[in-house]
Amino acid sequence: MNPQAQRPIGVFDSGVGGLTVMRALVEALPHEDLLYLGDTARVPYGNRGAETIRRYALNAARQLVGHNIKALVVACNTATAYALPALQDALEIPVFGVVDPVATLAARRSAGGHIAMIGTRATVRSNSYTRALMNLRPDAHVHPIACPLLVPLAEEGWTEGPVVEQVLRHYLEPLASTPVDTMILGCTHYPLLHDAIASVAAEVMRRPLELLDSASATATALRETLAALSLHTPSTDPGSHRFLLTDLPEGFVETASRFFGQSVAERCEHVDIIDSFATPHG
Amino acid sequence: MNPQAQRPIGVFDSGVGGLTVMRALVEALPHEDLLYLGDTARVPYGNRGAETIRRYALNAARQLVGHNIKALVVACNTATAYALPALQDALEIPVFGVVDPVATLAARRSAGGHIAMIGTRATVRSNSYTRALMNLRPDAHVHPIACPLLVPLAEEGWTEGPVVEQVLRHYLEPLASTPVDTMILGCTHYPLLHDAIASVAAEVMRRPLELLDSASATATALRETLAALSLHTPSTDPGSHRFLLTDLPEGFVETASRFFGQSVAERCEHVDIIDSFATPHG
Repeated sequence: MNPQAQRPIGVFDSGVGGLTVMRALVEALPHEDLLYLGDTARVPYGNRGAETIRRYALNAARQLVGHNIKALVVACNTATAYALPALQDALEIPVFGVVDPVATLAARRSAGGHIAMIGTRATVRSNSYTRALMNLRPDAHVHPIACPLLVPLAEEGWTEGPVVEQVLRHYLEPLASTPVDTMILGCTHYPLLHDAIASVAAEVMRRPLELLDSASATATALRETLAALSLHTPSTDPGSHRFLLTDLPEGFVETASRFFGQSVAERCEHVDIIDSFATPHG
Repeated sequence: MNPQAQRPIGVFDSGVGGLTVMRALVEALPHEDLLYLGDTARVPYGNRGAETIRRYALNAARQLVGHNIKALVVACNTATAYALPALQDALEIPVFGVVDPVATLAARRSAGGHIAMIGTRATVRSNSYTRALMNLRPDAHVHPIACPLLVPLAEEGWTEGPVVEQVLRHYLEPLASTPVDTMILGCTHYPLLHDAIASVAAEVMRRPLELLDSASATATALRETLAALSLHTPSTDPGSHRFLLTDLPEGFVETASRFFGQSVAERCEHVDIIDSFATPHG
């Protein structure tokens, strides 16, 4: 057995969205100990500049490495898009993002190669999905759409009803005239809106569309790599799940529990992160 | 003349919302130099915990004091609610919040004393408006309503149309059964939604309602205090307006210009803030 196998797996996100990924990891790897770090004091990353996102992600990853993790999952599309290579360079453990696994799945599953990707403005601007898909399938046609209002709607629990449908209609309307057959939910918040997205997409496009989200694709990729490196935990007991948050505002536990699919109460701890890249200014 | 009179006035906000206050200050005090600091690397404050909000506000205020300001306007309802006493204690210059001036106006203008206040979740939770109004007018009945989706809608430029109207109907419906005659827009973003709020409120309440926003009330209070302290600038030229931002993401200048009411391009500078209250963690 690899002596590192008993260590926990670190999961990092800017806030609560990564809890949909954490949930998929719990299902795929029930015996692993998982340590989640949500940078809730600086959420959201999606509208910030590239340098700031990289700095925040490195701060957070160093915090998790201090907890002796054996692998890191960057459960945040924005951080994956802007900081994955920097994190892989800086850390000596395997680092997984949420873009490549689902891009691989989409490239394989799309019949016609027309793939839509919906995400935050920063994720779309980064071109990370387009790059990943074109590498995997050079004949692909990628249709990226920024949907900035979906994150606040999901966080507020407005996951169905006329408001979210009207917002989705506004965002998805441009797809009506495309032959898209596959759509990537390129933001960890969007699985909560899955049914509304599926229903409005069907209405707008009037033909079948497969929706793929990154959570289960990432969990599968992690499981395969842990096996290949003999890094699977030897334990056969249920793994422990802890949640570190840089801010614990009122109401957080309810929102987090909704994203995780079960209660996170009693398992949340507040931590500070040193913003070690900030420099004094005159 | 007070020797400090030639110094600039500092204006602090978590992001772009305070630019509606800055705009009112430019109108009320056209000869003053104004220095705006938007903490765009850590926006929004509205969903964060009280300690985190105080720490961020103190960090930002110290940065502005380093620019030799003669007075500070905290152009952010959340920061005013949670950090105003801490800032007034820590700084040796006059510090103005956005709550008291508009509360004073509302207490004076409301005929029946039933006053609605709409704001972010953190502002409502802080009870700052209720406390201020009850102090000014003990017979007042305050009706606070948290409207968390209005900030993302305003930032995305969704200031009119069916989506914003449906969201407003959801939030304002509880007022239908109240005798409210005055409404405080308790968030600096809401002046951009003024017309939609007025129209939906009229539809829901079916009787006249006066809408008051904090920007012009705060500008009036600042002008009166500067006069009382002989701190008015002696200059008769148009004042200069500079914008310091802790993050300058793509698209920022357009959004900021929309909030300020004129272009801020060429006047924005990126600055870092030291998060001096963060402590190392194991």
